[in-house]
Amino acid sequence: MQTHFQQELNKLKENLLKMAGLAERAISNAVEALVKRDTPLAEKTIAEDEKINQMEILIDDMCLKLLALHQPMAADLRFITSAMRINTELERIGDQAVNIAERVISLGQEPQLKPYIDIPRMAEITQSMVKDVLDAFVNGDAHLARSVCERDDQVDGLNDQVFRELLTYMMADSKAIARAVHLIIVSRCLERIADHATNIAEGVIFMVKALVIKHHADVKAEKERE
Amino acid sequence: MQTHFQQELNKLKENLLKMAGLAERAISNAVEALVKRDTPLAEKTIAEDEKINQMEILIDDMCLKLLALHQPMAADLRFITSAMRINTELERIGDQAVNIAERVISLGQEPQLKPYIDIPRMAEITQSMVKDVLDAFVNGDAHLARSVCERDDQVDGLNDQVFRELLTYMMADSKAIARAVHLIIVSRCLERIADHATNIAEGVIFMVKALVIKHHADVKAEKERE
Repeated sequence: MQTHFQQELNKLKENLLKMAGLAERAISNAVEALVKRDTPLAEKTIAEDEKINQMEILIDDMCLKLLALHQPMAADLRFITSAMRINTELERIGDQAVNIAERVISLGQEPQLKPYIDIPRMAEITQSMVKDVLDAFVNGDAHLARSVCERDDQVDGLNDQVFRELLTYMMADSKAIARAVHLIIVSRCLERIADHATNIAEGVIFMVKALVIKHHADVKAEKERE
Repeated sequence: MQTHFQQELNKLKENLLKMAGLAERAISNAVEALVKRDTPLAEKTIAEDEKINQMEILIDDMCLKLLALHQPMAADLRFITSAMRINTELERIGDQAVNIAERVISLGQEPQLKPYIDIPRMAEITQSMVKDVLDAFVNGDAHLARSVCERDDQVDGLNDQVFRELLTYMMADSKAIARAVHLIIVSRCLERIADHATNIAEGVIFMVKALVIKHHADVKAEKERE
């Protein structure tokens, strides 16, 4: 039978997964609104961020109560403090989706600059990162978390590519400038989302391996172990 | 006489202040490098981020040990979990200073687009925000923390102003585009730093008042209290 503490930890996991689901949907809605030039969907994405904000407060509260009432040790302590971090990162992913949606509304007032290819691809990768990193957290899967960190480089590469391409558009036609800048910012928002997912992944690896991967402190240690 | 736990908490405070000092200096160095077109100073700013990254690992470790060994309650628990959050925010401020420094290096390869007025002002405000919010944290000063949140609006306003101004530069001269985009990104980095300081300020208010100011959940509660 599960203890009360175990039940509370499971509830915390469920809430984090629910919040991750909301964050994933916010990204996909924002990018769908961009591609389909769907202003009402962009507005809906902005309005729904309120749910993510409320979830953040709820989860933070659960974590503090778990820390205060159960005074957990070792693995449980790392799990709860990791949950607090992940909670913050997910809320910021929601904020970035809002930033994208705001740009979609501005872009909706002018004709489309170009067909979007790289940006939807970036969105797809970042969504897979958010999904996988939460699976990694729930199942304590450091291997999957590591694969999330690796995908961050792909997103960075696409972001650079988008930036360079849009720069040439701007150079060629000054009427393209405002729209190109909006798209550069959309691309940066997706790149930030990938960073947030990577931050979560680093936390998961820390939680699982009790190993600090951040800032490459692990590279040497890992090599020695292999 | 201080208990061992009290001594450890004081050490934690000292380290956070030290880290905040590094973050403040990173901002001022990055902006000085921008204004003076000083590429070596930009490179130094990038190299010194390693110190901030190392501090983050050290502080995180201290917090986890304090939680595990002393199992603190109520106010001490909130203090330590707040310290963990602040630590993350300060590390990100360092990352934004690195982003600025990278743009400074790119900008150094071309003549200066325009004299910088609003960007140094934004830098000044964000630096004051970082400084004050750490004072607010150490002294448990919710009033000062609230003033930090208010300054965020000024920075947002300046960021919008910089964006609009640079857009007109780009429209007028396509040779200005690449440089203008770099400056738009510098301005956005400063705006992100102000957001990080605001996040810390919200945490301080929470810590002091045990009140959730985030996402305006407090507005009603506050009004009822006044």
